[in-house]
Amino acid sequence: MKHAIRNGVLIDEKDAQVPLYLREVQQSFSVYEALRLVKGKIVRFEDHYKRLVNSADEIGLLINVEGNELKSWLETLIREDNILEATIRITAYGGECNSVFILWSKLLTYPDSYYTDGISAITYKGERFLPNCKTGNLLLNYLALEKAHKEDAFEALLVDRYDRVLEGTRSNFYAIKDNVLFTAPDELVLSGVTRILVLQAATELGLTIVFQPIGFKELKKMDELFISSTSMAALPISNLDGKKTGKGHEITLALKDRVRELELL
Amino acid sequence: MKHAIRNGVLIDEKDAQVPLYLREVQQSFSVYEALRLVKGKIVRFEDHYKRLVNSADEIGLLINVEGNELKSWLETLIREDNILEATIRITAYGGECNSVFILWSKLLTYPDSYYTDGISAITYKGERFLPNCKTGNLLLNYLALEKAHKEDAFEALLVDRYDRVLEGTRSNFYAIKDNVLFTAPDELVLSGVTRILVLQAATELGLTIVFQPIGFKELKKMDELFISSTSMAALPISNLDGKKTGKGHEITLALKDRVRELELL
Repeated sequence: MKHAIRNGVLIDEKDAQVPLYLREVQQSFSVYEALRLVKGKIVRFEDHYKRLVNSADEIGLLINVEGNELKSWLETLIREDNILEATIRITAYGGECNSVFILWSKLLTYPDSYYTDGISAITYKGERFLPNCKTGNLLLNYLALEKAHKEDAFEALLVDRYDRVLEGTRSNFYAIKDNVLFTAPDELVLSGVTRILVLQAATELGLTIVFQPIGFKELKKMDELFISSTSMAALPISNLDGKKTGKGHEITLALKDRVRELELL
Repeated sequence: MKHAIRNGVLIDEKDAQVPLYLREVQQSFSVYEALRLVKGKIVRFEDHYKRLVNSADEIGLLINVEGNELKSWLETLIREDNILEATIRITAYGGECNSVFILWSKLLTYPDSYYTDGISAITYKGERFLPNCKTGNLLLNYLALEKAHKEDAFEALLVDRYDRVLEGTRSNFYAIKDNVLFTAPDELVLSGVTRILVLQAATELGLTIVFQPIGFKELKKMDELFISSTSMAALPISNLDGKKTGKGHEITLALKDRVRELELL
């Protein structure tokens, strides 16, 4: 039997459900985090816990478990289901529902060819509500990614009202030109746990970082485009809206390798 | 025991739950309707069913039950729980979750004083994603209403980037000036089932209807402000952001009375 945790209690994963009569469930009053378990080690737990609490604070949702205790819940689940590699999802509902759930699934990984050849992406017009916050209010992301999949693309990049390409549906977005790394400033996008590592790796590799939203029209001038996330590290984009983009992935792949080292430190 | 319906099957209301491991649940890929049961009669079922299907179509969610069959599910629930008056909620999840749930709760009504004295509202900056669509992506509405409640107000009116007051968190919005009824055009707001009746009643009462978004600055010139919804019919606003508004509620209350007649025809 596969397990889950609800408020510290081990349950059957099938029982990790939320009741539809609660307003918080009906109205997506929830926050979440997705973490990686690699070789039995939870990657960057403290960063994820901090962001979970930040997301919750921003919408007035109470997380009533301390980091240490939440980590011990994760460890209980890992031990009970005897898992070494996994993607772990923590979801917290607020209000009357007030529950913290932990579920796990097979570690999300991508074929090597995604890194060597790059992935295809589309652009999608839309702005996330509360961009700094990882909430369950994800219909825009869902629909954008569905459209990408229909067009055989891997990711959709969200383009705002000013034609700025800010982030992906489940990733941060970057462009490199002449050893300068461009990415939107923190206040416009999700402060990705992996984004912090990408920026650290970029500094180590001698790139200049410019926090500036990237205009759609500027994309074709760029040397490399890539996205980052917990599961991707850094993943090059070689095709955007059906057209080949960038001149290669050399720097992106160097960043990816360094991120995977940094996350285990 | 209180019941609910899932895909035509009568269940314990406590079992009307959705599993957190499904992406559609995590990402609010759902649509809903709230209906009134009055004196044993479901009010305007066909209008609600049509809107449910419209909401679903717009986001590519499949509702695989015909109107007649869905209505028979409602009737089963009404009969089983022996209810005469209720607010009935139909929720449909898409994708792998693909389920239609029906739940009921006590008929939502408001004290007479809300109508005679008017209610207090606040304004809240924010735009609904897919305004024509009743989806579970409701965090903006939730947060706006929470803020209203904290300020002892009954409703929050959503103000867009152009300072236009488009609609409430669970209501349509109108202003009356010199026998002209102003309300945002259909494409900017939810096409409320009760809104259709408000407009019909307004025509009957000899008002001119102007489909035009109402600017925040114009509000103080108006004779009457009001909101409408299935549960409210038409409810006057007497106080906005802490200031008295309008000159009375005479026309609003005439509209309310006529809406309650029309909805039972």
